[in-house]
Amino acid sequence: MEYRTYPEFSTHYPLILTTFMKRPVEIYPNEIGVVYRNHVSGEYHRFTWIEWYKRTCRLANALNSLGVKPGKPDEPGERVATMALNTHRHLELYYAVPCSGAVLHPINVRLALDHIVHTINHAEDKVIFFDDLLLPMVESIYDRIKNTVKKFVYMSDKPGLPVTKIENLYEYELLLKQESEKFEWSYLSEDNYATLCYTTGTTGLPKGVMFTHRALYLQSLHLIARTSFVNDPTYIHLGENIVPMVITPLFHIHAWGAPFFYVFMGVKLVLPGTFTVEGFCELVQTEKVTTVAVVPTILALLLEYKDLDKYDLSSLISVSVGGGALPLGLKTKVENRIPGFTASSGYGMTETAPVTIMAFVKKYMTDWSKEKLDEVRVKTGMSVPGIEVEVIDENGKPIPHDNKTIGQIVIRGPWVMEKYYKNPEKTSNVWYDEWFHTGDLAKVDEEDFIIIADRMSDIIRSGSEMVPSILLENLAALADFILEATVVGVPDEVWGEKALAIIKLLPGSDKKEEDLIEFLRIEGVEKGKITKWMLPKLVAIVDEIPKTSVGKYNKREIKKNLAEYLAKAKDMKQG
Amino acid sequence: MEYRTYPEFSTHYPLILTTFMKRPVEIYPNEIGVVYRNHVSGEYHRFTWIEWYKRTCRLANALNSLGVKPGKPDEPGERVATMALNTHRHLELYYAVPCSGAVLHPINVRLALDHIVHTINHAEDKVIFFDDLLLPMVESIYDRIKNTVKKFVYMSDKPGLPVTKIENLYEYELLLKQESEKFEWSYLSEDNYATLCYTTGTTGLPKGVMFTHRALYLQSLHLIARTSFVNDPTYIHLGENIVPMVITPLFHIHAWGAPFFYVFMGVKLVLPGTFTVEGFCELVQTEKVTTVAVVPTILALLLEYKDLDKYDLSSLISVSVGGGALPLGLKTKVENRIPGFTASSGYGMTETAPVTIMAFVKKYMTDWSKEKLDEVRVKTGMSVPGIEVEVIDENGKPIPHDNKTIGQIVIRGPWVMEKYYKNPEKTSNVWYDEWFHTGDLAKVDEEDFIIIADRMSDIIRSGSEMVPSILLENLAALADFILEATVVGVPDEVWGEKALAIIKLLPGSDKKEEDLIEFLRIEGVEKGKITKWMLPKLVAIVDEIPKTSVGKYNKREIKKNLAEYLAKAKDMKQG
Repeated sequence: MEYRTYPEFSTHYPLILTTFMKRPVEIYPNEIGVVYRNHVSGEYHRFTWIEWYKRTCRLANALNSLGVKPGKPDEPGERVATMALNTHRHLELYYAVPCSGAVLHPINVRLALDHIVHTINHAEDKVIFFDDLLLPMVESIYDRIKNTVKKFVYMSDKPGLPVTKIENLYEYELLLKQESEKFEWSYLSEDNYATLCYTTGTTGLPKGVMFTHRALYLQSLHLIARTSFVNDPTYIHLGENIVPMVITPLFHIHAWGAPFFYVFMGVKLVLPGTFTVEGFCELVQTEKVTTVAVVPTILALLLEYKDLDKYDLSSLISVSVGGGALPLGLKTKVENRIPGFTASSGYGMTETAPVTIMAFVKKYMTDWSKEKLDEVRVKTGMSVPGIEVEVIDENGKPIPHDNKTIGQIVIRGPWVMEKYYKNPEKTSNVWYDEWFHTGDLAKVDEEDFIIIADRMSDIIRSGSEMVPSILLENLAALADFILEATVVGVPDEVWGEKALAIIKLLPGSDKKEEDLIEFLRIEGVEKGKITKWMLPKLVAIVDEIPKTSVGKYNKREIKKNLAEYLAKAKDMKQG
Repeated sequence: MEYRTYPEFSTHYPLILTTFMKRPVEIYPNEIGVVYRNHVSGEYHRFTWIEWYKRTCRLANALNSLGVKPGKPDEPGERVATMALNTHRHLELYYAVPCSGAVLHPINVRLALDHIVHTINHAEDKVIFFDDLLLPMVESIYDRIKNTVKKFVYMSDKPGLPVTKIENLYEYELLLKQESEKFEWSYLSEDNYATLCYTTGTTGLPKGVMFTHRALYLQSLHLIARTSFVNDPTYIHLGENIVPMVITPLFHIHAWGAPFFYVFMGVKLVLPGTFTVEGFCELVQTEKVTTVAVVPTILALLLEYKDLDKYDLSSLISVSVGGGALPLGLKTKVENRIPGFTASSGYGMTETAPVTIMAFVKKYMTDWSKEKLDEVRVKTGMSVPGIEVEVIDENGKPIPHDNKTIGQIVIRGPWVMEKYYKNPEKTSNVWYDEWFHTGDLAKVDEEDFIIIADRMSDIIRSGSEMVPSILLENLAALADFILEATVVGVPDEVWGEKALAIIKLLPGSDKKEEDLIEFLRIEGVEKGKITKWMLPKLVAIVDEIPKTSVGKYNKREIKKNLAEYLAKAKDMKQG
């Protein structure tokens, strides 16, 4: 007699996002799960998990009705794109699309229009779901995408459709209303593709990266598990009682994983549309937000906000800062205002889903002084458990852990992309010798912490030497008169390139260009952190430093308008 | 041109135990990782992670030299058995064997000898590694296993081999000494089999269950992640600074996962050989143990220990109790002695690797009173995130969550076994309709907590009614004069079966058989927890209740010697 077994329900039980979606619905059906505040109208939308789930089921049925076809492991499902901010609807799309077997393509709406058009046509998006606020943007590219995109869905808090040239336009809320609140989620393979993200394309066109359910499941699970490893004495454990506000855009590499791990944890997710200071403060107060991750720029905006004192921000016990060096002046100010503040760094990129390296206090450090711990927290950190990270020299050998030698970061593991979408040649540039090559440079210190040195392309080549611009930026950030600082290479007849420092002073400061050089000389050269020839040859004091869509200094933008910055720059002629 | 990709280092990066083994070695090479105290000699053996790792590499080389052959996903590697207590050597075997591609079979040395012989021959163990203490046991079964087992390895803290009839006998420490401390761990598939465990075989012969690397990896990762979900206000987060003592035998279903998740976390693991009260107390004091999981019987032994006050047990901040109802008298006593004490329940079985259901405080309960929280913690609990648990009726439909209806627990998920080893027929008895059927009964309350009612075979069938013996045991445990209580069914001419309660009184108590019935009447019948006809018809007061290898009441043993218990029993003739 022949007996059957059920590997698909046991040893090969699939690691799929459907498991994440279902958990809060089963455990906390009647607890508030998703809060969205429209940052324009100030209106709140609150959903219990069961309400959110039923909307997601309706959406899955609507995708069916719109004719979106699911895929198979070796054949991606049809692409459904979003042009949307951090709203409950976007979170519904984050589950309805992948869990019904299609591929979610969250479009980074801060890219150049040409790049947005490229990603839509390259992805062959079949449907685009877009926010009412982004209607003008969709209209402006409509003629260049209408042959690719068959249907458009308009998402708004207000009923009705706008007058527009866009054809085949549907209304999100109406679509949902027409469908059943029940949906039979099909049994997916964990190798089914779930999302398609594009790189920001600092050089050339954005490249597409598809992630499988397995990759996203495993990244989330390892990141959640990592919380259990944490030794940092400032860490306060709240379990499912944390209330995170997701400020990182959902269109920016899965908002670093937030829509996945927070849903699986079943915590209340607060979505602010897009970041505004008053929206931030109000949401913290009304929703008792405990946890946010921000870039330094957002902190600066907060502290400059005149009405800050009117809000009760005391629930905030975990504010982590990443994505750039944290200026000391800013840090001190924030520490006086927000009790749970910690600066901590991390590293990742689109190709790695993204999180791979995070700040980490080692277990023998827990009784170190606050100052020493702060230093540890702003080192880029250690690999997330479950992923392999190495820093290698030109021969592919690991560099010595001497806090000096610089090598390239290479990564492999279950949430690293296998290939660029429809681009085998670019894939072969980064995937060889069994490792994914990031193109980013780092050193490793004696305690095995990886410290990002620079993008390979951001290294300033001065003579035969390399000036790591991040090193100078991090040093400059320590000056108590500086609010923001970046360093770029500018052409030089003698040296090939020389360093230009661009700084924004703290409000009220009367410091001059020379003061930066003096500071770098004392804190950098004399303390052996940099050599004298690394000192910037040019310094420009500006009112605003351009930022990328994630709040990092936009060096590409600066280089585009280099003449403008050179005109403002003062020649230091030192040495 | 043909470009290659690397799915084996990205999307299909394998989930294998090698990743767990390597993490502490990379992060904490020079921290003490493994402490073993020989419970006979009292000697300590301490190993840094790098020392432990090098020994594990030597062992992997030795396995090679012994001719142990690795397997493939569809073909298990050769079986390497252990007959060993909780020692550093056993932990070395836990990694060297599976990570080199062979299958580890930890023999439950508390099984009947016939059953041990059966598992060895059924598993076709090629090598057995055994502790010096277990030499007499190996000798006693030698003639019945020597045709199967080709080689034996003797593990001892003392050098030299004993005089014995066992042929092909090797010395563990000598084997290691002869090998290189370097080993190239091969690239394994996550579907490679890692371990082979046998059920305790309460009915019939023990059945074999093989687990893949993937199953064990995913169980551990979900259990670690689960810690991040915890809302229990008594939970103290220590991260990698917890110091667990592993009391559950490593031969008992992976000691509930301890050798896997604690190594991946890189925490210091304390191994006591086997449990003794003085060993326990000394290890807590010297190693500053923070975390233990025990069965109620061990707590009772501790509290009865006359020298308890001589030890400093203040480091113990997380003592969880499972595997049986916790008598109230015992609970109160422990709470006065051990600050971090919490009673919490859980559920699992060999076939599920084992952990599947654990006590859980829901997020809206965190401000409940201690008494109410204690009630929540001793309900069996909720499914571990990542696994599906249902309680179904005879038609396979989920039962109502009414805290009343009883159904069968069915489970599916990535760490549920696919099949019994070489036993398709038994497999088909438990795996059908897409679910693994546990044969255990439970009800579900209004808050979706699953509460184990009984083994199907432990249900007492009295007339047309079913008396759930666990319900009676849990109730009896609440009496402040009772130290231990169990209930079994005995044959009855009229009713088919009737309930016999067997109790052990708290030392010094002068209560009588009638007092139990009176207590059950007041706390059970009058409060509507049981009906009158469920009251035991017979009560026996005894000095000792027999226990299984994991400290549960051994009903099989009781039924074997039923005449003896019936002779002691008093007929209650109530009702």
